[in-house]
Amino acid sequence: MLKEAVYHRPKNNWSYAYDRHTVHIRLRTKRGDVQRVQLIHGDKYNWQTVGAELTEMNVFAQDALFDYWQAAVKPPFRRLKYGFKLIDGDDQLWLDEQGFHESEPKSMNLYFEFPFLNAADVFEPPAWVKDAVFYQIFPERFANGDPSLDPVNVEPWGGEPTTSNFFGGDLQGVIDHLDHLTALGINAIYFNPLFEALTNHKYDTIDYLKVDPHFGTNEQLKKLVDACHARGIRVLLDAVFNHSGNEWPPFVDVREKGAESPYADWFHVREYPIGVKDGIPTYDAFAFVQHMPKLNTENEKVQAHLLEVARYWIEEIGVDGWRLDVANEVDHRFWRSFRDVVKRANPEAYILGEIWHDSLPWLAGDQFDAVMNYPFTEAVLDFAVRGTRDGKQFADLVGYLQAAYPQQATEAAFNLLGSHDTPRLLTLCNDDKRLMKLATAIQFTFSGTPCIYYGDEIGLSGGQDPGCRKCMPWEEDKQDLELFAFFSGLVSLRKNHRALKDGTYAVLHAEDGDRTLAYAREADGEKFIVALNASKRKETVTLPIGIDVAANVVFGDG
Amino acid sequence: MLKEAVYHRPKNNWSYAYDRHTVHIRLRTKRGDVQRVQLIHGDKYNWQTVGAELTEMNVFAQDALFDYWQAAVKPPFRRLKYGFKLIDGDDQLWLDEQGFHESEPKSMNLYFEFPFLNAADVFEPPAWVKDAVFYQIFPERFANGDPSLDPVNVEPWGGEPTTSNFFGGDLQGVIDHLDHLTALGINAIYFNPLFEALTNHKYDTIDYLKVDPHFGTNEQLKKLVDACHARGIRVLLDAVFNHSGNEWPPFVDVREKGAESPYADWFHVREYPIGVKDGIPTYDAFAFVQHMPKLNTENEKVQAHLLEVARYWIEEIGVDGWRLDVANEVDHRFWRSFRDVVKRANPEAYILGEIWHDSLPWLAGDQFDAVMNYPFTEAVLDFAVRGTRDGKQFADLVGYLQAAYPQQATEAAFNLLGSHDTPRLLTLCNDDKRLMKLATAIQFTFSGTPCIYYGDEIGLSGGQDPGCRKCMPWEEDKQDLELFAFFSGLVSLRKNHRALKDGTYAVLHAEDGDRTLAYAREADGEKFIVALNASKRKETVTLPIGIDVAANVVFGDG
Repeated sequence: MLKEAVYHRPKNNWSYAYDRHTVHIRLRTKRGDVQRVQLIHGDKYNWQTVGAELTEMNVFAQDALFDYWQAAVKPPFRRLKYGFKLIDGDDQLWLDEQGFHESEPKSMNLYFEFPFLNAADVFEPPAWVKDAVFYQIFPERFANGDPSLDPVNVEPWGGEPTTSNFFGGDLQGVIDHLDHLTALGINAIYFNPLFEALTNHKYDTIDYLKVDPHFGTNEQLKKLVDACHARGIRVLLDAVFNHSGNEWPPFVDVREKGAESPYADWFHVREYPIGVKDGIPTYDAFAFVQHMPKLNTENEKVQAHLLEVARYWIEEIGVDGWRLDVANEVDHRFWRSFRDVVKRANPEAYILGEIWHDSLPWLAGDQFDAVMNYPFTEAVLDFAVRGTRDGKQFADLVGYLQAAYPQQATEAAFNLLGSHDTPRLLTLCNDDKRLMKLATAIQFTFSGTPCIYYGDEIGLSGGQDPGCRKCMPWEEDKQDLELFAFFSGLVSLRKNHRALKDGTYAVLHAEDGDRTLAYAREADGEKFIVALNASKRKETVTLPIGIDVAANVVFGDG
Repeated sequence: MLKEAVYHRPKNNWSYAYDRHTVHIRLRTKRGDVQRVQLIHGDKYNWQTVGAELTEMNVFAQDALFDYWQAAVKPPFRRLKYGFKLIDGDDQLWLDEQGFHESEPKSMNLYFEFPFLNAADVFEPPAWVKDAVFYQIFPERFANGDPSLDPVNVEPWGGEPTTSNFFGGDLQGVIDHLDHLTALGINAIYFNPLFEALTNHKYDTIDYLKVDPHFGTNEQLKKLVDACHARGIRVLLDAVFNHSGNEWPPFVDVREKGAESPYADWFHVREYPIGVKDGIPTYDAFAFVQHMPKLNTENEKVQAHLLEVARYWIEEIGVDGWRLDVANEVDHRFWRSFRDVVKRANPEAYILGEIWHDSLPWLAGDQFDAVMNYPFTEAVLDFAVRGTRDGKQFADLVGYLQAAYPQQATEAAFNLLGSHDTPRLLTLCNDDKRLMKLATAIQFTFSGTPCIYYGDEIGLSGGQDPGCRKCMPWEEDKQDLELFAFFSGLVSLRKNHRALKDGTYAVLHAEDGDRTLAYAREADGEKFIVALNASKRKETVTLPIGIDVAANVVFGDG
């Protein structure tokens, strides 16, 4: 048994409360290296009298190098002391906090601890998220429902998007097209920013408490939210709290008054007067973007304002949560206060961070419920679209990701295949709808809530920003209705089967150099076999399925 | 290069802000397996234009299986994107978030991130802790300064301690003997609980806002704290917030009124009426101890009371911090609020958790400044006292511990060799003072603040509780003055040399089966060589020291 490969360290993704009664314990070993792992566990305060229990651990995920083992235990007094026994043939190893032992440790003193399962620390994403299918709307480009609100320089609907032009999309447009969303079957909307700002993307906020006048009013948003709720659709807004816009009044004041401004400490100014030197703002900004000054979220007045914003839109307007822009660059301390305020306003609100990379530090239950799952996006695109990852490599990366987070984070992950920040899926597929369907089929049959980027479902194309922000075409002859039927079919399939939401996941076929892939999802006595072929020719795959299975082909070419 | 041995995952002990400008990045490899590791790093927003930097990483710690590499970088815009290049002869490997690559990744997109160094998240233990030498006082047994306060059933000073008897120690006794502490040279006291309680150890609080009448009054504690401060001695109190005592009025009320009590939710009651069934309280308790009901720290009123306690003793009485009893069983959420209150009351206050096992989840800057470093205790006792760990095994365990936490946690660790919860050091040494001195010399020449358990310095002995809680003998003929001189010499040595506090640490000699050990501590151009012999005979050790060194023997037999 390769000792160097074995990993366990309490908390994070290795030991955590799955719910208020259950602790998950995980261990990593070299792939295929260890036959059995047993969890030795008990209550440290009665271990001497009652003794320990043994629970067999199971391999729940694998990647290129490792097997990941898991056991779920329900400690009667919510305290857990535990060690591991690794077995391979005649070899046995015990693992405790001091490392490996060739024989069973005489004392449990040095075993690992999950000291107490306190309910306050349990990571509980809202239950509805598992049942959600999201739809992302870039408001300036979805539908123009009220031309009287158009910017003066508005261009005709359907023109070529640039970084700075406007087409007049607004809230009334969304209200007018809710039937489209209902027909598609989605039950949650994620809106890109709606608050007053100068740009077409509105990530440069001027007023955090006011809907952009080109989009509508706060009252109209409330009407939209109510209309959505009446259809069973939840609404998520974009919180741009890392930075403000150039014209946000506090920043205007600092620009004018310099260090004398009462708002000077609301930002991170390195040098006055504020400006740009050699292409670099003299204050911290998002990237080096002059018109997006980074907010000092350590300042108590900035905190108070942003937390009031967080509360206002949930309590007064009824929105169901927040997507947090550039979430990884804001301090953890602020996000903890943010979670407190949001969950107090609505315990069922969803908090979704924009983080493109490893997100464990935000997914411990004290900050976010989920992140935008771009590592999953990359895995799917590599396998199904780019062909740069074979079935084995896809399964390995997905296996790694499943072991990388607590299970509830995987279940509440936000699985997207494109957004306002990436080229559109169809364009990545070189307009090959078969590849697009393959990728989308994976997205909808995996743990984590899928999100459709507006227009993908009717064949909208477009490259990297601004190309991916085209106007939604509403004439039926400009919509790919066959694709729409595919999407709505997937949405319906997923919504009606728990196996596809939080069912178990098992890889059935994933081989080196082979672009086919098969996996199973199972729950409630129902089992789905997902068999995929990303190669250019027909393939036959033999799957290890019991012979008594009564199988129905529910989707695909059979 | 053994891929399975390589470990890095952002945050925790692997990437963290050491101060407001510096990020430490660490990587683990199989011991002796890799010749060089380079950190490839830059700002993700100008990586394409400015490019990346390369920084050589150094092995800063080793254990039985692994080398631990570290680099310190100061990102100019506080954002860090980074990957690793591992080199062994002609072999090269690149590591990013998706794993290993045989050639340099074409894009930095999948490199790791330390997204932003926000000051609010920097873990900053109080600076004074590095300079501190603590002295732990068990108040009932240190000195009886005011017999008028004695419990009615007090026994003559110096009798055999039992779990329940009293000898009359009090605050006046401490005030009377501050000269002893000054002579010893310590500059911080950790008091076991002082608040009103029934037992002799006072871990069963009756009133969190009142000094136990057998010890004195709040005013007298303030007088004591002022007297300590005048001598440059800081004072730490014991916060018993996991559980209250049986006679705490809210618990009395629940015992009397059951579920109807307004305090019912202040505890975790499983069944009314509260009592004990088959030896198990019908409510959560510390261990299964009936007279220590666990507090519901999720209840806002409980929180408000305990946080007021935290504030009161710091702001009104002037104490310098808290030692937190059974800290690992209280929810993290409560400890975060606790830290906010304590640091607001005094930003320099020290927060020390009682945790016996791996403590990483509490040492990220949002909860504790340090924990009672029992894993270090075990390493020292195994090597110097029990003889169950040779020099190599000691160095390996200590190396593991150094890599296990952020550097500032190692520097602020609370290094003890015994306490009111363990047998006394001299007794563990079977009264062999040479072994005791060996262990203590290690304690005082390591990173982390040493703590002397009252009486150890004058040769007090005693086994496991209650034996370790004997009365301090004040007659000079009952004190081992030679031992006292040894202790005061070590205290003075440490206080006067930064190398012994937060200087670099390097193992010079640690071999399998060899009970000698040598290491170096270095800072400010000063280098200490600590050479130790835990065997029963004279040993000669050859150390790799430059020949030009002008060495002075500052301590020991030369």
